[in-house]
Amino acid sequence: MYYHVNGKLVASEDATVSVRDRGFRYGDGAFETIRAYGGELFAWTAHRQRLTTTCETLGMADAVPDDLGERIDATLEANGLADAYVRVSVTRGVQPGKLTPGHEVDPTVVVVVKELPRSGRDGTSVWEEYATVQSVGTRRIPDDAVPVDAKTHNYLNGILARVELRRAATDSYQPDEALLRDADGYVAEGATSNLFFVEGGTLKTPREGTILPGITRNIVLELAEDETFPVETGRYTLDDVRSADEAFLTNTTWELRPIERIDGIDVGDGPITNLLARLYDGIVERYY
Amino acid sequence: MYYHVNGKLVASEDATVSVRDRGFRYGDGAFETIRAYGGELFAWTAHRQRLTTTCETLGMADAVPDDLGERIDATLEANGLADAYVRVSVTRGVQPGKLTPGHEVDPTVVVVVKELPRSGRDGTSVWEEYATVQSVGTRRIPDDAVPVDAKTHNYLNGILARVELRRAATDSYQPDEALLRDADGYVAEGATSNLFFVEGGTLKTPREGTILPGITRNIVLELAEDETFPVETGRYTLDDVRSADEAFLTNTTWELRPIERIDGIDVGDGPITNLLARLYDGIVERYY
Repeated sequence: MYYHVNGKLVASEDATVSVRDRGFRYGDGAFETIRAYGGELFAWTAHRQRLTTTCETLGMADAVPDDLGERIDATLEANGLADAYVRVSVTRGVQPGKLTPGHEVDPTVVVVVKELPRSGRDGTSVWEEYATVQSVGTRRIPDDAVPVDAKTHNYLNGILARVELRRAATDSYQPDEALLRDADGYVAEGATSNLFFVEGGTLKTPREGTILPGITRNIVLELAEDETFPVETGRYTLDDVRSADEAFLTNTTWELRPIERIDGIDVGDGPITNLLARLYDGIVERYY
Repeated sequence: MYYHVNGKLVASEDATVSVRDRGFRYGDGAFETIRAYGGELFAWTAHRQRLTTTCETLGMADAVPDDLGERIDATLEANGLADAYVRVSVTRGVQPGKLTPGHEVDPTVVVVVKELPRSGRDGTSVWEEYATVQSVGTRRIPDDAVPVDAKTHNYLNGILARVELRRAATDSYQPDEALLRDADGYVAEGATSNLFFVEGGTLKTPREGTILPGITRNIVLELAEDETFPVETGRYTLDDVRSADEAFLTNTTWELRPIERIDGIDVGDGPITNLLARLYDGIVERYY
């Protein structure tokens, strides 16, 4: 495999960063996970925009290189990949001095790719089964500590939530995703996914402010707005989700993934979940 | 310079980690900052213990290598350093799969050193002036989101606080340290330091639970217990600190650093600060 590091294609085993890189020392960087379909980046404009917004939040507004799209294309080509997972990182690089970031930024820009079969109507989901979700004690980091709409290399909040799942797992119980609540106890999101559920014909999802507003989530909300059922964003309890008629998770790689059970309680898919999944597949199809 | 990476001494320019290292991807690692005096590590037992505790919190209890002390010694020797700053990182390394950490950990262990003149009674402080402290809007990440006693590569909370300082700075106002409050608005700690202040002859410092309990802070508390003035840990407001008779910050490199001003209000040192600084210097002297 070839990756792309600071403007150059390099063999994956040579793709390294300095131990003094602030991305390594402090997780001081932004990233995006993107899918490529037929060599084209899905929702590239939205991903690029969020990457830029995250860099602005981190005080390095100009860190995203103008030719980032070309770097990704070159990486996909070098590996002969059309349908792929792409991870792009932009860190603050190496700087003199200590914790306070300098104004002069020579960012570290990394593109990692791997094959990921196409999805869409006749495609393959990356997941084989509906999700088993478990709520955890780890709470979502509040917006006033680290802005929730920044997608950064500081991912321990989600990792600690997943470590809780690992500790709860048995031979017969292997939850896939941890559900985090916010500081007030309301449902926020999964470690790597947003949550939707359906109650009495209304599609519901936690409002912005305590979640990373996912790009897949935004697309699903746009699709839902064109349909006849009501859509609501709000604050919800675990009981609201456990008693839902339908529920699903969204993220770039899973796309829509129905929830089989949450905290051991059956939920499953239903007409609204399945309609939205078909509509989403239709968008993916346009990339072929 | 030579650094130590995964069991080998390497030239600093060759000291790298894979872009797939979880320390880089997610900040999924623990670190410690330690001082060496005359080739000996100051408070090594306490630092090693906290590093181990952090790794346990991250679900990789056995990641700290048994010979870590020897690796640090070898790095100091290779660079001919006796008085030095040492930064040790232990990350979860490269793992297959995605966010959920695997049980099998082949940790990445990095030792970075640089010269730092000795302190102590006849030594040099790393700081030239008393600290100028500014309270910031960024709040300390709560314990239920990421355990506060874990010292990890997820350092954006402190960096965002320092970015606020950078934005507030002018030619004539250059604050050194950001003071973060907890979610309830009580004073917690600096981006890289703990806070102490003196009010009516009592030494006060924010209690554990919303702070990283620093090793220098612990030593200062132990020193204070042997003295005649009262010591109190509690919850304090910004006004409590601003109206203090004396105030100082502590961390491994600064040791005790008096606060000149906080939010533009003069505070300064005083008899208790100066006594504790002398006692601390006395401990450092024992390393010679």
